[in-house]
Amino acid sequence: MSFKKIVVAGGGVLGCQIAYQAAYKGYDVTIWHRSYSSIGRSQPKLDRIHAIYIKELKALKYKIGSLSADYPKGLVEDFSSLTPSKVDELTARAERAYINIRMAVDLNEAMEETDLVIECLPENEEQKMEFFRRISEVLPAKTVLVTSSSTMLPGTFAEDTGRPDKFLAVNFAGEIWAKNITEIMGHHGTDQKAYDQVTAFAKSIGMEPLCLKKEHPGYILNSLLMPFLEAAKKLQEEEVADAETIDRTWKLATGAPEGPFRIMEEAGLRD
Amino acid sequence: MSFKKIVVAGGGVLGCQIAYQAAYKGYDVTIWHRSYSSIGRSQPKLDRIHAIYIKELKALKYKIGSLSADYPKGLVEDFSSLTPSKVDELTARAERAYINIRMAVDLNEAMEETDLVIECLPENEEQKMEFFRRISEVLPAKTVLVTSSSTMLPGTFAEDTGRPDKFLAVNFAGEIWAKNITEIMGHHGTDQKAYDQVTAFAKSIGMEPLCLKKEHPGYILNSLLMPFLEAAKKLQEEEVADAETIDRTWKLATGAPEGPFRIMEEAGLRD
Repeated sequence: MSFKKIVVAGGGVLGCQIAYQAAYKGYDVTIWHRSYSSIGRSQPKLDRIHAIYIKELKALKYKIGSLSADYPKGLVEDFSSLTPSKVDELTARAERAYINIRMAVDLNEAMEETDLVIECLPENEEQKMEFFRRISEVLPAKTVLVTSSSTMLPGTFAEDTGRPDKFLAVNFAGEIWAKNITEIMGHHGTDQKAYDQVTAFAKSIGMEPLCLKKEHPGYILNSLLMPFLEAAKKLQEEEVADAETIDRTWKLATGAPEGPFRIMEEAGLRD
Repeated sequence: MSFKKIVVAGGGVLGCQIAYQAAYKGYDVTIWHRSYSSIGRSQPKLDRIHAIYIKELKALKYKIGSLSADYPKGLVEDFSSLTPSKVDELTARAERAYINIRMAVDLNEAMEETDLVIECLPENEEQKMEFFRRISEVLPAKTVLVTSSSTMLPGTFAEDTGRPDKFLAVNFAGEIWAKNITEIMGHHGTDQKAYDQVTAFAKSIGMEPLCLKKEHPGYILNSLLMPFLEAAKKLQEEEVADAETIDRTWKLATGAPEGPFRIMEEAGLRD
């Protein structure tokens, strides 16, 4: 019943991360590209991710036995039971993942027998819609389809997919090997079974699934983050306080490791 | 030039905390009450705070030498250099503070020679205004006056105080021995000198001063917190996700120790 073969559509930064993480966790993974040239652009991204995993795993060996809350949770789920030989196993697994990820351009061939397609195309509504229409004709009946769009709602595309009941949305954080969270959001026509399958898949690749009960722009995280960051920008713009004081206030008052301006900086949201 | 004699006007929870903390840090502290019966209501609050300081100091002895980021920073400013005999000194200081806080009802007598008055009356505009008018007639020329109102702006009362240049606002967090932050906010007529004196006073009682450059409703903290908490409530009300999932999302994504619903619970903002 559980998924075996996964297709990631689009070899951008997020697509490569998801593909690598799924392969690392033992899935049969194919990245489908729109063109041969996009395979070429994708390869250095995969190379970089592979280098990060190998480096993180190497660093983990030296952390064994020391308290650490910030180990890469996507790479190792239980830091407390880690041993050097277990790290060696994980390193071998990363090497296998790197070698085994398949690249494809032929849509029919790529989608054959696939259990799950994760759409990671650019945030362009028309491009996504065209893709969903194209694959609606070639996807096996069993295949569950998810979009990774962070700005568009799954309801926008549901009918175009030809399988609204097996279609939903997922939102990953950047650097999924370190920040292992996945928000999962259906539209009103999503079957609970497909939702549960995707939730189980997220867990199986080391993610913490965060389940939304209905469609909502911005999922949970951005719905909280955006008004908070806006309030911080307003305080700065109105010259009530400077960014450093605002960040310090938030950290001291709430115990958070980062204030709003630091969060904006890390997310590339600050000019 | 620095303050010696402090009057806290009002013996509620916040007033007692500020009075005790200032006495603990060596200031000559008087709590002015509107009536004798309010002295009676205030005493158990002071007793409770004293018991907390003694208990926290006792607990500190057992923490010496162990890493701890969450020691009560209002009680001890540098945990890393703490010794058992230093804790004994601090305990003796707490005992002195408890004994030395004076209670007063006569306004003239209470305000005599005072360097700083911290108004901690109930959040009632008329009551505060009446108080400011009354003391404007008896305060020494040198006295700096602050309101601890968290919901009203200092500009509202500036003229009634008779000393707008020496009048500003401060905002403490609850449990100031543990969460040692003080937001400091002037109105457009506050002199920089008075502002700096209050900032120095806040530091001298172990607080982290957070300086606002102008008057702003909600100071910094509540200006950030309110839209954030509103967003969380909206997600719950619209049944996008439950409180537990929303809190978990925030904590996992930002590394914060608490999510919005836990913050509301602690602040008594949740039904």
